[in-house]
Amino acid sequence: MKLATLRNGTRDGRLVVVSSDLTRAVAVPEIAPTLLDAIERWSVVEAPLRAKAAQLAAGAAAGAAAGAAAGASAGSEIIAFDAASAMAPLPRCYQWLDGSTFANHGALMESAFDMGIKNEYEQFPLVYQGASDDFLGPCEDVCLPSEADNMDFEGEVAVIVDEVPMGTSREAAGRHIKLLMLVNDISLRGFAAREMKTGFGWVQAKPSTAFSPVAVTPDELGEAWRDGRVHLSLEVERSGAWFGHPHGSEMTFNFFRLIEHTAYSRTLRAGTILGSGTMSNASRSAGSACIAERRAIEMLDQGAVKTPFMRFGERVRLQMRDAAGRSIFGAIDQEYVKS
Amino acid sequence: MKLATLRNGTRDGRLVVVSSDLTRAVAVPEIAPTLLDAIERWSVVEAPLRAKAAQLAAGAAAGAAAGAAAGASAGSEIIAFDAASAMAPLPRCYQWLDGSTFANHGALMESAFDMGIKNEYEQFPLVYQGASDDFLGPCEDVCLPSEADNMDFEGEVAVIVDEVPMGTSREAAGRHIKLLMLVNDISLRGFAAREMKTGFGWVQAKPSTAFSPVAVTPDELGEAWRDGRVHLSLEVERSGAWFGHPHGSEMTFNFFRLIEHTAYSRTLRAGTILGSGTMSNASRSAGSACIAERRAIEMLDQGAVKTPFMRFGERVRLQMRDAAGRSIFGAIDQEYVKS
Repeated sequence: MKLATLRNGTRDGRLVVVSSDLTRAVAVPEIAPTLLDAIERWSVVEAPLRAKAAQLAAGAAAGAAAGAAAGASAGSEIIAFDAASAMAPLPRCYQWLDGSTFANHGALMESAFDMGIKNEYEQFPLVYQGASDDFLGPCEDVCLPSEADNMDFEGEVAVIVDEVPMGTSREAAGRHIKLLMLVNDISLRGFAAREMKTGFGWVQAKPSTAFSPVAVTPDELGEAWRDGRVHLSLEVERSGAWFGHPHGSEMTFNFFRLIEHTAYSRTLRAGTILGSGTMSNASRSAGSACIAERRAIEMLDQGAVKTPFMRFGERVRLQMRDAAGRSIFGAIDQEYVKS
Repeated sequence: MKLATLRNGTRDGRLVVVSSDLTRAVAVPEIAPTLLDAIERWSVVEAPLRAKAAQLAAGAAAGAAAGAAAGASAGSEIIAFDAASAMAPLPRCYQWLDGSTFANHGALMESAFDMGIKNEYEQFPLVYQGASDDFLGPCEDVCLPSEADNMDFEGEVAVIVDEVPMGTSREAAGRHIKLLMLVNDISLRGFAAREMKTGFGWVQAKPSTAFSPVAVTPDELGEAWRDGRVHLSLEVERSGAWFGHPHGSEMTFNFFRLIEHTAYSRTLRAGTILGSGTMSNASRSAGSACIAERRAIEMLDQGAVKTPFMRFGERVRLQMRDAAGRSIFGAIDQEYVKS
């Protein structure tokens, strides 16, 4: 099942069920007006939402006209799905925790720039608390104050959980994962080093975060969702050019351990989003999912950084395809512009 | 005007206007069902909420019976206000940013324990992003997994803002501050050093945060609210014994600068809470608003720490009085218990 949130003038938008091929959608106000409401009542709304998705799929099988008729008989209009009109699946939520679970990325950054970060990667996943009040839709402009702040992107996958009680173990964590998304964890590298050195984590370095057009239930990934990891490559393009295609299998700490770690001393309320951090592979041929990492590789392999950070007018595009080449989440496709 | 949120079985509770002496309250469903809703429509709801507060005050002036009659004529029942039945004024919100704006506290911690933190206090306020999905009411138990994690409290003041556009200056920040509260920033010191060294900030070290029974508009503080600071002492008691009474005037970075700093690269949506961080004064006679600081002082002045962290069964009480000795926010009064 795929879910999206369409703009309707409210802060939380309007929940729609989206067809698996991302072409059509149907609103479900009789089930749940918003995704935030749906995730809080997931055990109640999942079955009717899946029934709606099945109706939508059946309509597709019978052709567009029949699909429209099926929609009409269910009291809902089937509309064309346009990623450009989508907000983030959760346009805001109550908690956004972003990991750095691909140890390869941290090791590269540390080797190249010696940020002074001390973390025992073997024991503890790195996680920071992000702002969750103001997420960007997949095609919304990234409005930022200055190129001098060293604007970057970070390609990630993320999960949305229902309520995770304090003390939940990694073994019990999987059942709380209800949806997956892609993320552009927009970053201002000009502030990263100073803020990390304070020990307090990032504030100015982390503007609003963007998410993919749809959030999908784990079954939509088939065998690619296993062991708490997404075993697929993320396609990363910068202004139309290949930038990387890191694979999710090299995630050092999986989502189960990320949940266990973050729920140690507090309950994660329904709708909490947990991110993987920048996807990163040991092989240089995989490229990178953020500019900072490419610069680290240049520093290590060539002795100097060459790749500039984002300029206003540049774009980033993030997408993930299944084995048959079909886009799973739709594409994040954003232009960086001056605020 | 004083506002509180009472338990009603929902996650966001029920908004009530509370009398200035904290004895009586009246629900205002016809104006706003929740404080989260009210802060998002503050420009619309402030006047009717103040009118309700004035009615409540007039009822008080005429005595309890007349007050009840005035309430009935307005279509709302006046009830006794009991802090123990209060949730946090915002039981959850979309963003919680907690500063460390009393430089004296940071200097003591650094001198005593050399946490390796590098921050230019002259230039930048320290801020971390906290979890905002699950706040505690003023009298709710602090449920935590283990005494071995070194349980602490931190006494602070906080503000609630309406929407703060990206790029708001310190000069323009004050008009966005709509409400003030007290905070118990519950902390697990056993994780603090390791998490700070990662540079990613605190996750396990910061369980759910607790807030005072009421949030108040700045005018309730009179002359004590000026220059973006609360010029009053916070009374801190541990299990019935005096622990400190630090004064707000020594706040190094005021709330205006905290807002400017955190809104540099993103919009702060309505309902964002910003905290002062542990209140702390240069004079040893002011005591401390957290155990960690007292231990730092012991280390510096006596060469060894003596004060233990919280044990299960112990309590913390935080309160702030006006010049006439009246409690402004009601008291945070919590027991630490095993989860």
